[in-house]
Amino acid sequence: MATQYLRKSLFAFSTRSLAHGYARTLSTTPSFPCVDAHAARESRLLSANQSPDKDTASSGPEPPYARPSPTSYHTYKHKSPLPLTYAPPLSEFDIAYETWGKLSPNKDNVILLHTGLSASSHAASTELNRTEGWWEKFIGPGKALDTDQFFIICTNVLGGCYGSTGPSSINPTTGSYFGTHFPIISIFDMIRAQFCLLDHFGIKKLYASVGSSMGGMQSLAAGWLYPDRVGKIVSISGTARTSPSSIALRFAQRAVLMADPNWKNGFYYDSLPPHTGMKLARQIATITYRSGPEWDQRFGRKFRPLPEPQDPTIPRPPALCPDFLIETYLDYQGEQFCLKYDANSLIYISKAMDLFDLTEPALLSLGLVPPLAPAPAPLDSTNAQETGVLQASNSKSHPPPPNQAPHLPELAAGLAPLAKTPILVLGVQSDILFTVDQQRDVADALRMTGNAEVRYYELGGVWGHDTFLLDVQNVGGAMRGFLS
Amino acid sequence: MATQYLRKSLFAFSTRSLAHGYARTLSTTPSFPCVDAHAARESRLLSANQSPDKDTASSGPEPPYARPSPTSYHTYKHKSPLPLTYAPPLSEFDIAYETWGKLSPNKDNVILLHTGLSASSHAASTELNRTEGWWEKFIGPGKALDTDQFFIICTNVLGGCYGSTGPSSINPTTGSYFGTHFPIISIFDMIRAQFCLLDHFGIKKLYASVGSSMGGMQSLAAGWLYPDRVGKIVSISGTARTSPSSIALRFAQRAVLMADPNWKNGFYYDSLPPHTGMKLARQIATITYRSGPEWDQRFGRKFRPLPEPQDPTIPRPPALCPDFLIETYLDYQGEQFCLKYDANSLIYISKAMDLFDLTEPALLSLGLVPPLAPAPAPLDSTNAQETGVLQASNSKSHPPPPNQAPHLPELAAGLAPLAKTPILVLGVQSDILFTVDQQRDVADALRMTGNAEVRYYELGGVWGHDTFLLDVQNVGGAMRGFLS
Repeated sequence: MATQYLRKSLFAFSTRSLAHGYARTLSTTPSFPCVDAHAARESRLLSANQSPDKDTASSGPEPPYARPSPTSYHTYKHKSPLPLTYAPPLSEFDIAYETWGKLSPNKDNVILLHTGLSASSHAASTELNRTEGWWEKFIGPGKALDTDQFFIICTNVLGGCYGSTGPSSINPTTGSYFGTHFPIISIFDMIRAQFCLLDHFGIKKLYASVGSSMGGMQSLAAGWLYPDRVGKIVSISGTARTSPSSIALRFAQRAVLMADPNWKNGFYYDSLPPHTGMKLARQIATITYRSGPEWDQRFGRKFRPLPEPQDPTIPRPPALCPDFLIETYLDYQGEQFCLKYDANSLIYISKAMDLFDLTEPALLSLGLVPPLAPAPAPLDSTNAQETGVLQASNSKSHPPPPNQAPHLPELAAGLAPLAKTPILVLGVQSDILFTVDQQRDVADALRMTGNAEVRYYELGGVWGHDTFLLDVQNVGGAMRGFLS
Repeated sequence: MATQYLRKSLFAFSTRSLAHGYARTLSTTPSFPCVDAHAARESRLLSANQSPDKDTASSGPEPPYARPSPTSYHTYKHKSPLPLTYAPPLSEFDIAYETWGKLSPNKDNVILLHTGLSASSHAASTELNRTEGWWEKFIGPGKALDTDQFFIICTNVLGGCYGSTGPSSINPTTGSYFGTHFPIISIFDMIRAQFCLLDHFGIKKLYASVGSSMGGMQSLAAGWLYPDRVGKIVSISGTARTSPSSIALRFAQRAVLMADPNWKNGFYYDSLPPHTGMKLARQIATITYRSGPEWDQRFGRKFRPLPEPQDPTIPRPPALCPDFLIETYLDYQGEQFCLKYDANSLIYISKAMDLFDLTEPALLSLGLVPPLAPAPAPLDSTNAQETGVLQASNSKSHPPPPNQAPHLPELAAGLAPLAKTPILVLGVQSDILFTVDQQRDVADALRMTGNAEVRYYELGGVWGHDTFLLDVQNVGGAMRGFLS
């Protein structure tokens, strides 16, 4: 009746402390290397900050964003005010950018590429910076964004920390870091700043606005704000109305970051950054970038290798610090990121994502009225709204949802300025952050505007939100087909 | 071409600080009430700890688990060693428990009810404690767990902080709090401790083992460890093999908790508890208990009411502290929980959940061999394995998955001891923590053992993992039907 419990007596020889940390010797004090790592990082940063050759060291634990390399990208300096959605105008601002391909004589081959939350303008390698970019395999001769044909511009967004004006910049009116004196910004503000750069180039109209994740929001916002200046739109794993569940996931990240004592209400630039909060926040974020099925395939329930051989006759001692491979993966991702990106940029830009909402009531509450009256839907279109009532389209490959979301008509009304812009919407079924429901909403609402040129794809697979970084064949292929 | 940007000039009169916290007056210093709340809580706890009438105060900010009310539940004191899965035996232990209904003369009407991670033994009101319990609507005369028929026992689990021995208990061998000297425990250990209580009652066989969430794991583990002592099993939103995605979500919680400076490697019982880490951890946990569709229905993109009327001619100023209702909801849930539960209990019990795996290789690695040789599958059963090869069953309402998970045969082999136990498996399609795939795995694997008495239901709806607490009609109804 009782369980056969083998080798029980051998436990008398096992090390209690092994059950907690990675202690190699018998000890009565539990050790937690994953917690000690925070203090060790703090010490490294502190000693690097106090080092006499601090300003000349070429590398070290100092946050890289504190050492911009303005020679590896271009900087556009805008010396007049930028109106903001939620705050008084920003008196001046910088936008870091990189380009690929050649601008055509009549400047009609431009693709503006928008980034995700934490990416820099370095989408692909350039002569100035030969390291691989975040979309290296999508940009180049004959690639999805074909540099033989297009002139591609990618910027670091307003609010970022890779060369564009953000919370880690010096406020020109005070001479001090902005910190949380930086105004709350919106996705619209990011777009307006980018179009100042386009004006500087003399580019009147984009061939296309392209983006993934937050870049998908920007891509839609560009077409919404400037329907006459955007020829085509690509929105990959983006959204037109941020969902409460993705707000919740970003809120959890901001909360751990802001609770880090180093955050100091955002004024930490003269001391140490909230590196522990950043690590914890990135761990949460990383969970949202992939999918459960991928982790089951990739890590399953495998444990990390132990530092030394274990007695095979007793159960492997579990640890409260990262123990399963999935935990060491999250720990590693957090550790890698925690000094690469500015905490305040994460807070401000993630907030801008949360605020993004192209439904009509939300736009009206911001005093934003559609830049163009909605074009009457062409009566010969397959999507003609013959009844005059907005309704979801009914294409064979994308039937209308059985239970239409209540916000869909409001979203369709808000998206009216995009009624005539050809658009590619691409979503991923395993995405838990920008769920496939939100992708369908965008495509449905666009069709409800009477837009007859909505291309909509859903990808399967297990890569979740990160699919846009990984699936060159399907994401790249759909984009190349749409843009050519 | 340019956007009509209404009322822009009014911004000159708006308050910059409103864009960050909830400041009511013009101020040049951004305020963050959500961050200040952590320090304020710390001060309240500190002054309460230093108060001269600390020991007599009937309420206050001191953690309630530091003031057990042993008069509101019963305590079973076990004075001999309990063998543990991963560590040397625990020399003695207490188990807090409550009961409902009457034990029949031959003690054959007992239901052992298992709790989720953070619940106490107080599943329903009793004469000792008249406050509502966590399953109040499921327990009583004529209810799903019918007290006219059954004698129901619910315990606080081993490792908990509501009267059972756990990290916040005094270690009898040292006279000090266990803290992280407490051994890593397993779901099996929790069950063995509960069966010591059953032995004490003289209960030879349970009518049923019932549980939801972690209680579902325990319910399966009870049947696995003691197949002759468990008549029926109910597993609601549980799992037989914790998935890496739920490990990831609990890892994120443990990581923020352990990073709280108050945690002090788990030895905080003589000082202040890691209340900020607990709040942040609970915020993350709360995200996993419901579903995105529920939040969209319940909160949508609504904002919290502002403390004072705003100028309707300018956009509502956003805040970096909780701003959307979904954020205030998470903040509130975290605040409510952060002093109600012991941080170390959360760490240890969540780890026990992560370690739970009834696949055969995992069981063998623990030296656990099945307590009963698998019963030969009856050849006349509808689930007879006629080919001798384990395969998923094919019932009309639950067809086998098109891509069978690789671990399914291993799980079926591990579940062999349950081949003859009638079992109800109930899952929820919107559950993101104990996903419906895991529910199907349990049902599939059980059918693959030859078990012809597997009842399997999937519930729809938007309540996610919390469905087991909320859906009295469907969860309670399925259970009542199965148990009667």
